[in-house]
Amino acid sequence: MMVLLTRKEHFCASHRLYNPKFSDGQNLRIYGKCAYPNGHGHNYELDVTVAGEVDPETGMILDLKELSDIIKKEITDKVDHKHLNMDIDFLRDVIPTAENLAIVFWNILAPKIPKGKLYSLRVYETPTNYAEYRG
Amino acid sequence: MMVLLTRKEHFCASHRLYNPKFSDGQNLRIYGKCAYPNGHGHNYELDVTVAGEVDPETGMILDLKELSDIIKKEITDKVDHKHLNMDIDFLRDVIPTAENLAIVFWNILAPKIPKGKLYSLRVYETPTNYAEYRG
Amino acid sequence: MMVLLTRKEHFCASHRLYNPKFSDGQNLRIYGKCAYPNGHGHNYELDVTVAGEVDPETGMILDLKELSDIIKKEITDKVDHKHLNMDIDFLRDVIPTAENLAIVFWNILAPKIPKGKLYSLRVYETPTNYAEYRG
Amino acid sequence: MMVLLTRKEHFCASHRLYNPKFSDGQNLRIYGKCAYPNGHGHNYELDVTVAGEVDPETGMILDLKELSDIIKKEITDKVDHKHLNMDIDFLRDVIPTAENLAIVFWNILAPKIPKGKLYSLRVYETPTNYAEYRG
Amino acid sequence: MMVLLTRKEHFCASHRLYNPKFSDGQNLRIYGKCAYPNGHGHNYELDVTVAGEVDPETGMILDLKELSDIIKKEITDKVDHKHLNMDIDFLRDVIPTAENLAIVFWNILAPKIPKGKLYSLRVYETPTNYAEYRG
Amino acid sequence: MMVLLTRKEHFCASHRLYNPKFSDGQNLRIYGKCAYPNGHGHNYELDVTVAGEVDPETGMILDLKELSDIIKKEITDKVDHKHLNMDIDFLRDVIPTAENLAIVFWNILAPKIPKGKLYSLRVYETPTNYAEYRG
Repeated sequence: MMVLLTRKEHFCASHRLYNPKFSDGQNLRIYGKCAYPNGHGHNYELDVTVAGEVDPETGMILDLKELSDIIKKEITDKVDHKHLNMDIDFLRDVIPTAENLAIVFWNILAPKIPKGKLYSLRVYETPTNYAEYRG
Repeated sequence: MMVLLTRKEHFCASHRLYNPKFSDGQNLRIYGKCAYPNGHGHNYELDVTVAGEVDPETGMILDLKELSDIIKKEITDKVDHKHLNMDIDFLRDVIPTAENLAIVFWNILAPKIPKGKLYSLRVYETPTNYAEYRG
Repeated sequence: MMVLLTRKEHFCASHRLYNPKFSDGQNLRIYGKCAYPNGHGHNYELDVTVAGEVDPETGMILDLKELSDIIKKEITDKVDHKHLNMDIDFLRDVIPTAENLAIVFWNILAPKIPKGKLYSLRVYETPTNYAEYRG
Repeated sequence: MMVLLTRKEHFCASHRLYNPKFSDGQNLRIYGKCAYPNGHGHNYELDVTVAGEVDPETGMILDLKELSDIIKKEITDKVDHKHLNMDIDFLRDVIPTAENLAIVFWNILAPKIPKGKLYSLRVYETPTNYAEYRG
Repeated sequence: MMVLLTRKEHFCASHRLYNPKFSDGQNLRIYGKCAYPNGHGHNYELDVTVAGEVDPETGMILDLKELSDIIKKEITDKVDHKHLNMDIDFLRDVIPTAENLAIVFWNILAPKIPKGKLYSLRVYETPTNYAEYRG
Repeated sequence: MMVLLTRKEHFCASHRLYNPKFSDGQNLRIYGKCAYPNGHGHNYELDVTVAGEVDPETGMILDLKELSDIIKKEITDKVDHKHLNMDIDFLRDVIPTAENLAIVFWNILAPKIPKGKLYSLRVYETPTNYAEYRG
């Protein structure tokens, strides 16, 4: 009886897409306005999906409140109202694209899921753009 | 030419997460405020996805109106404006978590799908919490 | 420089529309399935709008975090995961329609707004049904 | 490091579900009000998901701006504000159900994806009805 | 105790913005792609707001189910899955802009509201475009 | 026949709430995490409402495409993917709260509306926080 359980969390942050290996002109060609020097920001959404067996005693895979608390403690409390390029230890030397955020957040969360296994992690930059990583 | 076709339906209901095997204190520790004695409720959403071949004569897997009618007849007309723990025959002795609802609704709907096969059933309790079962 | 500032909060609760003055049959005729004996529930949303002058020193009418905390302390922490007919002191003897909730919540919040004045209070029962009170 | 990257685009169009092989009565039985003679319309949404490796130099699978431009050039600029049965070369002789639109749009887009591979294409007719094709 | 009560309904229809007084070239200049000859369509939403006193016996201004039934009977059942320029008696000789739809729908609904008074009628063509009429 | 016509536009930007007159400690007390030194960001939405008479020849107050172009040219093209405190001439010396943005954007747009008059301007920072200015 494998079920997928999803919890959505959110955070507001700024970022800049920029690779210091490249010249400013190259960065602008690669990232367009996402490379503007002072950065911009998003209302990010994070969809965390855990796959697991339903415990017949509780009817739950895991407690959604506990899952929410783990996502907040490990991720969103750390990145909320921050600049992703400048303020976050675990994003140092990471270009904060949606793709990279999905991978980095996965690597942090996967070992912390108390029951079941992390199945999918989605990062929405906007309602029209998102990346999903499945490990 | 396998295509997935999804229809979203909704219902409003109340429920309480509570296992009579456990003491009240244990229920509060396991389910938190979801175990409060008089229950609470949600605007539930149900995403029903059918996988099937597209009929070359009609361009459809199955008629979405017919799928909608089946979901209403078998599920949402029965649970809408009801208390899931008290009023529903097919939920007797089921702890009405999103996980269990997804499994129970799947078991009811899967044999009723007239063309194609049930592929996924999602139960949203809120926009931030949902369970998905794939059989 | 009058500006309107709105904060949305939410809570999940159950309720039943039922007036003990009326017979069960009358209640069913008046309230339809909202009068079913064991109640049902919603993911309620609360839009609280304050009108006020923008403070030139801060650029704010009032602190949205403070407004959020007031709404939570006075309203949503008290009604979340509760049965509105049974569990809430300030709803005793109130038929918990969206209209009445808007008026009762207004009367609680209006004197607590620290700057500016309460301008509008909306209660969404579902995305398609809401009541608004303006005092 | 396979990641799924999704871009949502939209268009407004009219269509009619009707197979000229069938009589008018048969069309009405099969398609219901979707077969009314003068057609109707939708705000369509298109979710295009590409699967690919993240380029370690850029942190991206492909440029979302470029993906957006391809979807617009190949699909949405051509179908926006059009009648899908009458105005679109690549939909001639196609019954424009959501299922068929998903397949036709996939076949157009799949060879144009510059990096990674097309993984999924969803066509939303309404927020409650959508078809998904995965090739 | 004046409260505003809103009910949202929806319909899918096609339309074309075109004034037969003008040449085809003028219509294209005025309406852009909305004047394309075979029309296009939308998932329209209709927000109907009634202002009224709360009945102390029922806690309601009027029954939302009754309001919903009136909107369906008078408006959405008639325009759903139709071509607004061709199929609708009460839109003959009306250019079906959102502005005109709001006025026409208001004039139909205002005399049918059983309690309270029609306060506002919004017509959404898309999530980003809407017109509101207040009589 | 006064009708209100609304167009929603959006932009992504970063900002920091900080008044240089105050000490860092005072800024943190006033603005909380919105005062963090490297700023954060949002997917802003802008709802621009124009009030006007419906032209009987066109059925429109003004062309929504023209309104959209004006909002983009005057506002969103200038602030999109920018840092509101650092990059924008017309926000120099403005603390970029939602309240102040609504006033500044109003002052820019009001004289540019070609027909009718600007009636309301809403700035959404997030789906739960917005400011509205009506001149």
